[in-house]
Amino acid sequence: MYNFSAGPAQLPLPVLEQAAAELTDWRGSGMSVLEVSHRGKDFVECAADAEAILRSVAGVPDNYRVLFLAGGATGQFSAIPANLTAPGDPAAFLNTGQWSAKAIKEAGRQGVVVNTLADEAASSYTTTPAEGSFTVPVDAAYLHYTPNETIGGVEFPYIPDAGDVPLVADFSSTYLSRPIDVSRYGVIYGGAQKNLGPAGLAVVIVREDLLGRARPDVPAIWDWTVMAAKDSMLNTPPTFSIYLLGLILHWIEGTGGLAAMGERNRAKAARLYEAIDASDFYANPVEARSRSWMNIPFTLADPTLDADFLAGAAAAGLTNLKGHRSVGGMRASIYNAMPAEGVTALIDYMADFERTRA
Amino acid sequence: MYNFSAGPAQLPLPVLEQAAAELTDWRGSGMSVLEVSHRGKDFVECAADAEAILRSVAGVPDNYRVLFLAGGATGQFSAIPANLTAPGDPAAFLNTGQWSAKAIKEAGRQGVVVNTLADEAASSYTTTPAEGSFTVPVDAAYLHYTPNETIGGVEFPYIPDAGDVPLVADFSSTYLSRPIDVSRYGVIYGGAQKNLGPAGLAVVIVREDLLGRARPDVPAIWDWTVMAAKDSMLNTPPTFSIYLLGLILHWIEGTGGLAAMGERNRAKAARLYEAIDASDFYANPVEARSRSWMNIPFTLADPTLDADFLAGAAAAGLTNLKGHRSVGGMRASIYNAMPAEGVTALIDYMADFERTRA
Repeated sequence: MYNFSAGPAQLPLPVLEQAAAELTDWRGSGMSVLEVSHRGKDFVECAADAEAILRSVAGVPDNYRVLFLAGGATGQFSAIPANLTAPGDPAAFLNTGQWSAKAIKEAGRQGVVVNTLADEAASSYTTTPAEGSFTVPVDAAYLHYTPNETIGGVEFPYIPDAGDVPLVADFSSTYLSRPIDVSRYGVIYGGAQKNLGPAGLAVVIVREDLLGRARPDVPAIWDWTVMAAKDSMLNTPPTFSIYLLGLILHWIEGTGGLAAMGERNRAKAARLYEAIDASDFYANPVEARSRSWMNIPFTLADPTLDADFLAGAAAAGLTNLKGHRSVGGMRASIYNAMPAEGVTALIDYMADFERTRA
Repeated sequence: MYNFSAGPAQLPLPVLEQAAAELTDWRGSGMSVLEVSHRGKDFVECAADAEAILRSVAGVPDNYRVLFLAGGATGQFSAIPANLTAPGDPAAFLNTGQWSAKAIKEAGRQGVVVNTLADEAASSYTTTPAEGSFTVPVDAAYLHYTPNETIGGVEFPYIPDAGDVPLVADFSSTYLSRPIDVSRYGVIYGGAQKNLGPAGLAVVIVREDLLGRARPDVPAIWDWTVMAAKDSMLNTPPTFSIYLLGLILHWIEGTGGLAAMGERNRAKAARLYEAIDASDFYANPVEARSRSWMNIPFTLADPTLDADFLAGAAAAGLTNLKGHRSVGGMRASIYNAMPAEGVTALIDYMADFERTRA
């Protein structure tokens, strides 16, 4: 079974098997990890280990704090303005898809004066702005962008240059999919439910000099400064999600770390795009330089065959390939946990379907 | 193994066993519940079932909405003022412990003019206000109270009369521990991690006429009105927590529902208090009428024996009995999932310890 869901998404089978095996008896305690106090020695160790392995795998510099927060990326859409601006402050945005747009809308609701430096809506979100085509105003509280758009399958081929303005990036659908230069960012954040674990957890990496700027009414559980001081445990954190995040990070390390992961992900995506491009029956609308390694939408030349394509795929063990309702067609999300064999099986099925039905 | 943790807390073993058995293959899908889209048919059914069984078990009237939100009760400390007040509006509070006090502090941070009608701090939080001893101002946006204080082990023996002012109650540590008259409340909320499941989920039951009052800048994922319209799926919800909540609700129903649960919980607490009161060695500081059924703090006459008591308890399979750091001594949290046999084992151990060591 290969699960191409955009998120929550396929998890590494060894991680699920370990979680299942110890779900009623964790660390020989006779208790489940779901049942232990977040302030007890075992769970504090578990959370500290998850942070340590994240720091090690991603190469997080010492002047960055790692926070495990409730509410996913959408929660941080509200938390970012509350932590980095006063109402009425300006911030800059790059709009390359539905998730960028949601982050922009929420910032506006929080009283941020929104300055959208680039808006790719005219391309139906199939492009990214050319490097160097925009200038970040020096008075912007931050520049926000979405390195990978889950719905459009659009990815920045570069890290935007924000000068001295803090760069804030929603990495939800591309988190730890390849090596990352954390030092280029002010804030990296994202929901865990694609590459890092189950739904309900936001992983935030914030440069220390950006702490201490929060509004007085920032919701307490999203006050980065407080949460940094409390090791993300002002209140009861989503413990099971943090536990599973740690298992997944160890799995990433055990499979060669981010360099090997990035090479596997690059190769998986390249093979699928190659198959799409070699066919007149399948098409991907995204400009070549901005194609995502993680989320690959594609259409059939004859959309009346969509339902048959999906039914046949499911019968072949290839699930959740239906495209986002706003885009239509198909979408193959091939995150870290998708093995190369899954992509091969999809390519083979696509070729078979084209040969017999197109 | 009997786990007296205050939360995250012991879960029903049949629930954990079912979760473990289907963690790699849910509903015969070949996928984990952790891996499926929250918008897919299977998970939408799962969440709808969790809501339906909650409504059935708790007797939630039709004019109340049930919301599954990220961030636990502490998140709702921020969300409640944002949903029910404009900055500067007054609201009324009863302060009976550390959790009431945190809710009050957060409301103040959100610009609520706090009117504390009763404050039990002078008793070191061992009391509740007498029924009828306070009057709720008619201009209060709501009256907030904490039916059960997890740390102090203090419980209201009555539902406060708020007149026409909406009554808002943090049920975190007593949720579904006995029958409840939902119609008396405007908003019932709480973290799931004591009686209802894993950490990271707030279950909110809100009367429909209280929707539509939110501030324009309420964080989107806590906008009750939007979340009610979206069946709690504006964004990716904490799916595994909702799944486990459903399993636990079915377990509650299967063990006789809230009437039977309440009778078991009453009897468990009564036996433990009886043992404490019958001894000169153990003591519980809470006034008799306000004693909690869920969290029972007790002290040893000789606190130098605390460490030995805890070590012996752990050796006997009775874990997490250490009292809250602010109270000291011991605390036995005996939520729904604690079987009567666990309380018996604790009482037997306490008697043995007193006989041999006191």
